[in-house]
Amino acid sequence: MSQALRLATSLSRAYPWVSSPFIVSAPMRVMSGPAMAVAVSRAGGLGFLGPSVKTQDMIKDLEEISALVHDLRKSSSAFSTLTCTLPVGVGFQLWSDDLETAISGIQKFKPCAAWLFAPRNGQTDYDNWSRRIRGASSQTQIWIQIGTLAEAKGLLKGSERPDVIVVQGADAGGHGRAKDGLGLITLLPEVIDALAGSQIPIFAAGGIADGRGAAAALCLGADGVVMGTRFLASEEARISRGYQNEIVRACDGAVATTRTLLYNHLRGTMGWPEEYSPRTIINRSFIEHQEGRSFDELKKDHDEALKAGDAGWGPEGRLATYAGASIGLIHGVKDAATIVHEVREGVLERFSAVGKSNL
Amino acid sequence: MSQALRLATSLSRAYPWVSSPFIVSAPMRVMSGPAMAVAVSRAGGLGFLGPSVKTQDMIKDLEEISALVHDLRKSSSAFSTLTCTLPVGVGFQLWSDDLETAISGIQKFKPCAAWLFAPRNGQTDYDNWSRRIRGASSQTQIWIQIGTLAEAKGLLKGSERPDVIVVQGADAGGHGRAKDGLGLITLLPEVIDALAGSQIPIFAAGGIADGRGAAAALCLGADGVVMGTRFLASEEARISRGYQNEIVRACDGAVATTRTLLYNHLRGTMGWPEEYSPRTIINRSFIEHQEGRSFDELKKDHDEALKAGDAGWGPEGRLATYAGASIGLIHGVKDAATIVHEVREGVLERFSAVGKSNL
Repeated sequence: MSQALRLATSLSRAYPWVSSPFIVSAPMRVMSGPAMAVAVSRAGGLGFLGPSVKTQDMIKDLEEISALVHDLRKSSSAFSTLTCTLPVGVGFQLWSDDLETAISGIQKFKPCAAWLFAPRNGQTDYDNWSRRIRGASSQTQIWIQIGTLAEAKGLLKGSERPDVIVVQGADAGGHGRAKDGLGLITLLPEVIDALAGSQIPIFAAGGIADGRGAAAALCLGADGVVMGTRFLASEEARISRGYQNEIVRACDGAVATTRTLLYNHLRGTMGWPEEYSPRTIINRSFIEHQEGRSFDELKKDHDEALKAGDAGWGPEGRLATYAGASIGLIHGVKDAATIVHEVREGVLERFSAVGKSNL
Repeated sequence: MSQALRLATSLSRAYPWVSSPFIVSAPMRVMSGPAMAVAVSRAGGLGFLGPSVKTQDMIKDLEEISALVHDLRKSSSAFSTLTCTLPVGVGFQLWSDDLETAISGIQKFKPCAAWLFAPRNGQTDYDNWSRRIRGASSQTQIWIQIGTLAEAKGLLKGSERPDVIVVQGADAGGHGRAKDGLGLITLLPEVIDALAGSQIPIFAAGGIADGRGAAAALCLGADGVVMGTRFLASEEARISRGYQNEIVRACDGAVATTRTLLYNHLRGTMGWPEEYSPRTIINRSFIEHQEGRSFDELKKDHDEALKAGDAGWGPEGRLATYAGASIGLIHGVKDAATIVHEVREGVLERFSAVGKSNL
């Protein structure tokens, strides 16, 4: 059996409800809530709950997910083959999440996967969290998100090896590598070559928003694909309408988005490890920041815009609009299941179309 | 007939010796010489001659190509179906190349394609060059390289429409967009959507170095793929051994390469339009520039390194080493035909492997 086939088999054992190709909704902080995570898994993908403002809030979200899954099992055949594992994953920002609270939630609800990202102390934190999670729930697989070749190699040297590695390219929205990131087209195959023989499945994230990007990532060697921004424009996203409208409206990702810490600071979010910064859609706050307006003035206008609600987003808005460079590929809000199905069909369509005209 | 099929048919009419998938060697300045261009076309790809130091030098290169092709026609069946067109293309840097000299070369040698890049005056230059080239040789197709959505849309508004559009992603080596570039994974499908219905074939460049990247680009919607850096490590490249060794040695493209004008200035190359800057492998010149060493001192050491020949390249070297972020995927020098064949087979292998394990 080839390595690719062996990995596909091991993935289908761990996530038996997931169809091929393996499609994942990213754990976007707050915005990937219970409804989105369950809808994606129910559609044959793997949904992740995003990190919470406070780790304690995760418990409430997991309770809601648990109830949703319980109802699905009673009313249909969905997830009927599962016994004790919750068919959704949970994401953590290691530098800000509380380990003890996380562990108690994992122990109680047994999510099928825990996605670890953004440690303050690199591999040490990954090892510590992984060991504690495995101790609390042997069914919970460890997913680790990296964005550089060096991080990928570091994972092989840790005391705890992840079950899945997510390689995030520079086109991704929200937080990623501040300065040493790169697009998937070169980063992903180079990481895959470096990890060859490790037997760890590798998933691709960053810039994938439709069947074309998903098919491309699979060709580059990914065992599955992760989408974030595409799911911000889903019915189930826990997101303000003004924010979501802006994801749909914006286009030309190279020009309309940038990486900057400005919006973190305007929101009062401090403390991200310095390796990371978020990609966001540019609006008045950033433009005026570039023009040299003072932070205090920008903060005042930002806080006024907060009170305006949905009108605070958009080209003339001032609020953080974290999003990936794939915004130009997203033209409408759909329910999460439709997104999963369309991307899956899009992958098949691409393989068929390329075969007919190019091969 | 689908649009993809129609485009494939029109391409195979214009370039009858080219096999699917359509593989192109980029017109890298000086380094893509006659031997490389002919070898790539002979292997069933399309080879481009790179721009010359002076446009006049192109005439000598075209004479050499013409003689090589003449010999091939006599001694084998290669290119036997062609009558008056030279089965290689020629690349021009519009801001620095001399139009009149270019036109006289095109008129005399009738290359199958002219690749236009880096105009000083945007669409006006593209229109002017395209009109003059078509007037000089109706068999010569116009290829135009762009790196942004805005440029792509601009091409539809010009008075002369290109026959092929090359979309260059930010991972590319050498000159590309200085600040508003993006990886192919989001840029390419967004450009393709914007040009949908134009009937113009779209080729992908930037970060493609093996069958994985080529297959990915085709999935993203490209009608063909262009490789530059991969061909720098070909036997036929017109390149110093020290430079070529560094392409093979270097890895971790995100960290080991950067875009900077420093090496242009050290070499005395001035005048590139400000939208562009080149991606290069980092060495002592750039590191010391970052550390604040004066340009005059760096220039002195650079000029000393020039005298050292091959030893002037490498991590401790000081000479310009323009290369793409795909360097980590290139592990040896091969002849150009082997590169074309391996990438072609690699594409087929990826489609087969993904089909077996993921679909």
